[in-house]
Amino acid sequence: MVRWQPGAPERLQKAALELFATRGFEQTTAAEIAQAVGLTERTFFRHFSDKREVLFQGQELLAQTFLEGVATAPPGASPLDVVAHALRSVSAFFPDERRSHSRLRQSVIDRNPALQERERHKLTTLATTVADALRTRGVGEPAATLAAESGVTVFGISFIQWLREGEERSLASIIGEVFDELLKLAGNATVGREVR
Amino acid sequence: MVRWQPGAPERLQKAALELFATRGFEQTTAAEIAQAVGLTERTFFRHFSDKREVLFQGQELLAQTFLEGVATAPPGASPLDVVAHALRSVSAFFPDERRSHSRLRQSVIDRNPALQERERHKLTTLATTVADALRTRGVGEPAATLAAESGVTVFGISFIQWLREGEERSLASIIGEVFDELLKLAGNATVGREVR
Repeated sequence: MVRWQPGAPERLQKAALELFATRGFEQTTAAEIAQAVGLTERTFFRHFSDKREVLFQGQELLAQTFLEGVATAPPGASPLDVVAHALRSVSAFFPDERRSHSRLRQSVIDRNPALQERERHKLTTLATTVADALRTRGVGEPAATLAAESGVTVFGISFIQWLREGEERSLASIIGEVFDELLKLAGNATVGREVR
Repeated sequence: MVRWQPGAPERLQKAALELFATRGFEQTTAAEIAQAVGLTERTFFRHFSDKREVLFQGQELLAQTFLEGVATAPPGASPLDVVAHALRSVSAFFPDERRSHSRLRQSVIDRNPALQERERHKLTTLATTVADALRTRGVGEPAATLAAESGVTVFGISFIQWLREGEERSLASIIGEVFDELLKLAGNATVGREVR
């Protein structure tokens, strides 16, 4: 019988991040991660399909949170307002207590091109899923894709800023400012019609 | 001595696309492409580093065109106006005569996940380069990244629409409409400030 071990995934994740950060991602095995917290490799694989998953499991939850935010926005909200509503849910997902964990994770990803690629890919997929969710709310194209891509871009810029050394503003506050900047940029554009 | 063969790259590219489309990308070799137009494999590799390059060489030119468009926008233009100016140069790069070639190329890419990944990656890189170019013009952050990402998103959406079966509008006209839609979306957003 498999005994449930409270906190095992969290302990594994913490140990994995520390090993990835100090030894390098490639140089760390699942067995070593498990060993570092007194668990077996088998236990590791009960929680994660591979060592890469330790870094990306959170992204599934992020996507889910984003989509729930889209679904629960007030009926009749404009597409970018729906996205703004979703970004509020996403901000709550990254409280300041999580910042040092996220920084460590990012430092591991920044040093490995394959992990960077996967991170980028997940954000692209996120934009596609958010566009689907907006269409489900009755938003047409190209509005759905434009709003979804804008939302993911605002999130991406804000998240990187939130992780910067010395940054102390909350993610919610940074997202708010970047979102405002986007609206300001659009307000200052004069030549939309001239493009054609 | 290497003799210059007029039109060799164009002939190779045309033959490659046709072979990729009928036989599949993986199933086609550089030697077969060369053979199809009476050239040697050696000649093929004088023009392309590998068969994948036949599909992506144009993207380098696209990036160059985009950057030139950013550089030659009127001084003092707002960031999104600079991007709109660049998109005009980019449109000129895809006249209607090129549509059937681009459709064939897209059908090859759509059937191969690795090629899709590369296409996506090139667009991400393009956004980064355009943001650099905007910063060179004195645009700060996050405005530069927001404007660059918006421009690449508008291009991406418009380009896919331009390739659709039955679509007859020019790329310039589609880009103009998608760009307008983006400005309209921003104009309808009310809660920017509430996000934080």
